[in-house]
Amino acid sequence: MFEDQAFSGVLVPVLTPYDAELAPDAGRFVAHCRALLDEGATGLAVFGTTSEGNALSVDEKLRLLEELAAGVSAAKLMPGTGCCALPDTVALTERAVRLGCGGVLLLPPFYYKAVDDDGLFAYAAEVIERVGDPRLKVYLYHIPPVAQVGWSLPLIERLVAAYPETVVGIKDSSGDWANTEAVLGALPGFGTFVGSEAFLLDNLKGGGVGCITATANVTAAAIRAVYDNWRGSEAARLNDEMVALRKAIQAYPMIPALKEIMAQRNGDPAWRRIRPPLAALDAEQAAGLTRDLARLAFPMAAE
Amino acid sequence: MFEDQAFSGVLVPVLTPYDAELAPDAGRFVAHCRALLDEGATGLAVFGTTSEGNALSVDEKLRLLEELAAGVSAAKLMPGTGCCALPDTVALTERAVRLGCGGVLLLPPFYYKAVDDDGLFAYAAEVIERVGDPRLKVYLYHIPPVAQVGWSLPLIERLVAAYPETVVGIKDSSGDWANTEAVLGALPGFGTFVGSEAFLLDNLKGGGVGCITATANVTAAAIRAVYDNWRGSEAARLNDEMVALRKAIQAYPMIPALKEIMAQRNGDPAWRRIRPPLAALDAEQAAGLTRDLARLAFPMAAE
Repeated sequence: MFEDQAFSGVLVPVLTPYDAELAPDAGRFVAHCRALLDEGATGLAVFGTTSEGNALSVDEKLRLLEELAAGVSAAKLMPGTGCCALPDTVALTERAVRLGCGGVLLLPPFYYKAVDDDGLFAYAAEVIERVGDPRLKVYLYHIPPVAQVGWSLPLIERLVAAYPETVVGIKDSSGDWANTEAVLGALPGFGTFVGSEAFLLDNLKGGGVGCITATANVTAAAIRAVYDNWRGSEAARLNDEMVALRKAIQAYPMIPALKEIMAQRNGDPAWRRIRPPLAALDAEQAAGLTRDLARLAFPMAAE
Repeated sequence: MFEDQAFSGVLVPVLTPYDAELAPDAGRFVAHCRALLDEGATGLAVFGTTSEGNALSVDEKLRLLEELAAGVSAAKLMPGTGCCALPDTVALTERAVRLGCGGVLLLPPFYYKAVDDDGLFAYAAEVIERVGDPRLKVYLYHIPPVAQVGWSLPLIERLVAAYPETVVGIKDSSGDWANTEAVLGALPGFGTFVGSEAFLLDNLKGGGVGCITATANVTAAAIRAVYDNWRGSEAARLNDEMVALRKAIQAYPMIPALKEIMAQRNGDPAWRRIRPPLAALDAEQAAGLTRDLARLAFPMAAE
């Protein structure tokens, strides 16, 4: 079981850049993805929460995914495909499989609240069976602070029992280490990712495989250093540096803060664009972030 | 202001029937819509929560809307057009206006939680300006128990001040009468609908215009009777009968309970179909509902 779990390390929920009309900018997107892999990211979890994945239409996601799969190794891609509407989830998941993506990140349908595990099981089963392709590898996206609806451990166990070759991992963005620990204990060998690098060391020690974290859009090298050296004598120091960076960034609204850093780093104000209801940092926040990161000797400006 | 608020009375958030493949069944859908207008509904709020609107893809909604607008007076239609993704909301809203719909019901983007009023204002403004059509009439869909994200009164006042000819009403499904009362007090003449007939009398007494309620899928005539007689001597008795029906139905999961009633009434088991994560009533629930409604002399079987 889970021998087909192909991902490990540092995956990035890739930010989505926009053009002046607020349409996705495929050129900047693919360039950012290539740069992330160069910096040490081991995979790209496009269309997640940090990607404003749910602020993109299905057609926009299909087009970006086609462009991206032509520009990087599709095996490194784990696109978010879970939508509220079953046909949308099936269409995105089918396309991901056809393009050779290494996996998909499956958010549960998140409009109705207090749905039971039977309903969520039926949803996931319907997606898996409609796609009907042995190449499909599903990572369950558990992020109750945002989606409200999540994948409980009993439900995960049921899905794994029913689809052992397909349901191979999880991104646990609960922010609740006890939940991750319970998954690690119940499902050895499962592809367990944490949603924050702050839990990376604990996850690796517990048998998990890595992290999928927003900040990796701008700190991939620092996180990769921890991943590569987690058993080494430098692990604690590298971890402290990495966590300090995260703390500095998450003192601001995360997605616009990351876009602000991208804009400054690349000398490219277009990176600040964001779709409402999210909003770019205001001038005061941007100045604060720049100052806070300068204190950590984090390079904001283009070389 | 609000002189273009064209809707009043009993609007129905229309159930969506499916075929054997769980695709929307346009034939049954249009037939149900026509029957509702015959039974006394004054308008059809298709693609709301009860309609499983967010379980439908944008293309499915566009196709159903085209079919429906060809079969009933488009002026009576108030489709739900609010999605998480701006281009989806714009596409649905544009089509609704082009087809002559009397209004649209605008759910706020509901994936990100704890977004501020500035972000939601920017979202609504972007939709209104991209559609850019004076025929557009927006009803704000406030349903925080499900969407979590809602339209606060200060935000509503801001939107009305900015777009007085466009933002003309609200469906308040907060279940919180104090909230409805505050809207009625702050915005006389606004098209204020309550999301449950249990508040219909209070809403009409306070200057509101009607209700948009799930149960109207099967009790439109009873609700219409209250609406037509709310100042009359029979109002209290009619209201009691109507509320008793609602209470009997809402003792069960609302959407599958309504579909169960449709199936029994029409002798048409296909009406029980529902998209996951929702599920049809089980046999025990269905029997309980049938028994509870029989006690109220509610006709379940086809004549």
